[in-house]
Amino acid sequence: MHSIEELRETFAKYLNDQSFTQEPKNLYEPNNYFLQIGGKRLRPTLLLLSTELFDGKIEEALPAALAVEYFHNFTLIHDDVMDKAPSRRGYKTMHEKYNLNTAILSGDVLLVKAFECIGKTHGDFRKLFAVFTKTAIEVCEGQQYDIEFETTENVTQEEYIEMIRLKSAVLLAGSMKIGAIIGDASEENANLLYAYGENLGIAFQIQDDILDCYGDESLVGKLPGGDIIQNKKTLLLIEALNKDDGQLKEWISKKEFDQKEKLQAVLNIYDQYHIKEYALEQRSAYVQKSEQLLNQINLPGNKKTILKDLVNYLVIRDF
Amino acid sequence: MHSIEELRETFAKYLNDQSFTQEPKNLYEPNNYFLQIGGKRLRPTLLLLSTELFDGKIEEALPAALAVEYFHNFTLIHDDVMDKAPSRRGYKTMHEKYNLNTAILSGDVLLVKAFECIGKTHGDFRKLFAVFTKTAIEVCEGQQYDIEFETTENVTQEEYIEMIRLKSAVLLAGSMKIGAIIGDASEENANLLYAYGENLGIAFQIQDDILDCYGDESLVGKLPGGDIIQNKKTLLLIEALNKDDGQLKEWISKKEFDQKEKLQAVLNIYDQYHIKEYALEQRSAYVQKSEQLLNQINLPGNKKTILKDLVNYLVIRDF
Repeated sequence: MHSIEELRETFAKYLNDQSFTQEPKNLYEPNNYFLQIGGKRLRPTLLLLSTELFDGKIEEALPAALAVEYFHNFTLIHDDVMDKAPSRRGYKTMHEKYNLNTAILSGDVLLVKAFECIGKTHGDFRKLFAVFTKTAIEVCEGQQYDIEFETTENVTQEEYIEMIRLKSAVLLAGSMKIGAIIGDASEENANLLYAYGENLGIAFQIQDDILDCYGDESLVGKLPGGDIIQNKKTLLLIEALNKDDGQLKEWISKKEFDQKEKLQAVLNIYDQYHIKEYALEQRSAYVQKSEQLLNQINLPGNKKTILKDLVNYLVIRDF
Repeated sequence: MHSIEELRETFAKYLNDQSFTQEPKNLYEPNNYFLQIGGKRLRPTLLLLSTELFDGKIEEALPAALAVEYFHNFTLIHDDVMDKAPSRRGYKTMHEKYNLNTAILSGDVLLVKAFECIGKTHGDFRKLFAVFTKTAIEVCEGQQYDIEFETTENVTQEEYIEMIRLKSAVLLAGSMKIGAIIGDASEENANLLYAYGENLGIAFQIQDDILDCYGDESLVGKLPGGDIIQNKKTLLLIEALNKDDGQLKEWISKKEFDQKEKLQAVLNIYDQYHIKEYALEQRSAYVQKSEQLLNQINLPGNKKTILKDLVNYLVIRDF
């Protein structure tokens, strides 16, 4: 088995080799720009890892790994438009670098290209296609809920978890299931790996929420507190609002405020209600669920260890 | 064999039965709105017709027919955003009726749903998927060229034909090929039907350009001359510019003008250079190419007659 880092590098090289060269240049070149912004290449790496877990060849899984990375980037391009985000990882977003039409249309063709890659993948095509399609639909549904929550006053924790499951966790889970299918895993194992990835994906997203409040700027790569400033309904804010005696609502309803002052005040309220501890507990609960599922997967011990170590890579992280 | 009208009605009923009912409502309901705006359901109807030509069952082709209609509507929704179009067939466009985010995201999920429908279709899945994916990519490429032509000074007729081939004709051709594949046509027949549809699709689009200048408002359903007012590079404008002694360029470069006056002046120039006759000749040339291809298709005479009659339905039309 290759290490996570080796798989990430194998994928990064493949992605680079596959950069778009065709015409019309103004349709495809923007996707090259966006894809090179980078990121951890988490989903394709986990897909390749899942193929190797079941003794499949990673060469045969590379097109599917490209598919999930294309798909992920398609969602980022369109989400950035919907969020009016000016930058991502220090680079201009697509609509900022180019324009709205490019962000829409280059994003569209990237989605179709993702499907095309699934078609080029070795393995049971109908199965691969079914997982990919279901996942793609759910991610759109998750994004819809995310948009709606911005203007919904009472979002419950249950609704929030379902939103991050759809918007984020299912793509991670789907990538692992696709990898398992390419490795010719049994249906039971593939489904268990999916459920494992789903729970880990939720824990991953909760960790993102925690890092946005408590992360180290130099490690995370962005100023902490963005979610608090924007009143983003994270697990932390939802729980704090449940316990709020009114001071948090007051800060949320303020139209004009000093950003540093608001951030400090809200963090003080979080401390008062032990919100960080609560979020860490919730994170642990999903990690535990994933471990229970891991126990049921039929794999040799050394491979289970690799999966167990994923928790450190995905959840117990500083960035 | 069913008539075109019967096939259109069968599809319309199926489309209606398949209207989206799932959550999140604000993601799916807008697509129901947009899909009911209507249109001629040309692509699904031709798909069903093509299945029947090769003695396939239309019930088995209905999901694929839905796929091409979903795909077509996805392109309309996103194109309307890119064109900043306020209305379509007398109804508000998606971004006008709802908002930009809905037009983007509901469009996105409609594209994925189109793929899902291909997955539900009876027949050689890899083949169906390949045709659908290639078509979808080309339609995006065609839209890109269309956008670029708005700000390109010298668009040649060749470039224009290639643009409408990609943006419009390939989806018509792809729909017919998909129908043929479902009917288990030979590869040669399916490819000939594709080429037939492609040429007819180009003639169809040229007819659209002609109708925009010379159509009867009460039949076409919109004021004629929109393309002329907006300096849209149609086959007619491109040819007229080739022959222009300067008066057309003058009208094109005017920032302020009386719409009726410009329309009449440009139509006069068109008359002077016999532009309508030229466009009709070009239209006939593509119809003739399609007839040559039709001769090569291995089908009984009565079925060829049905295909031949399509020309009246698609090209020699008043609306």
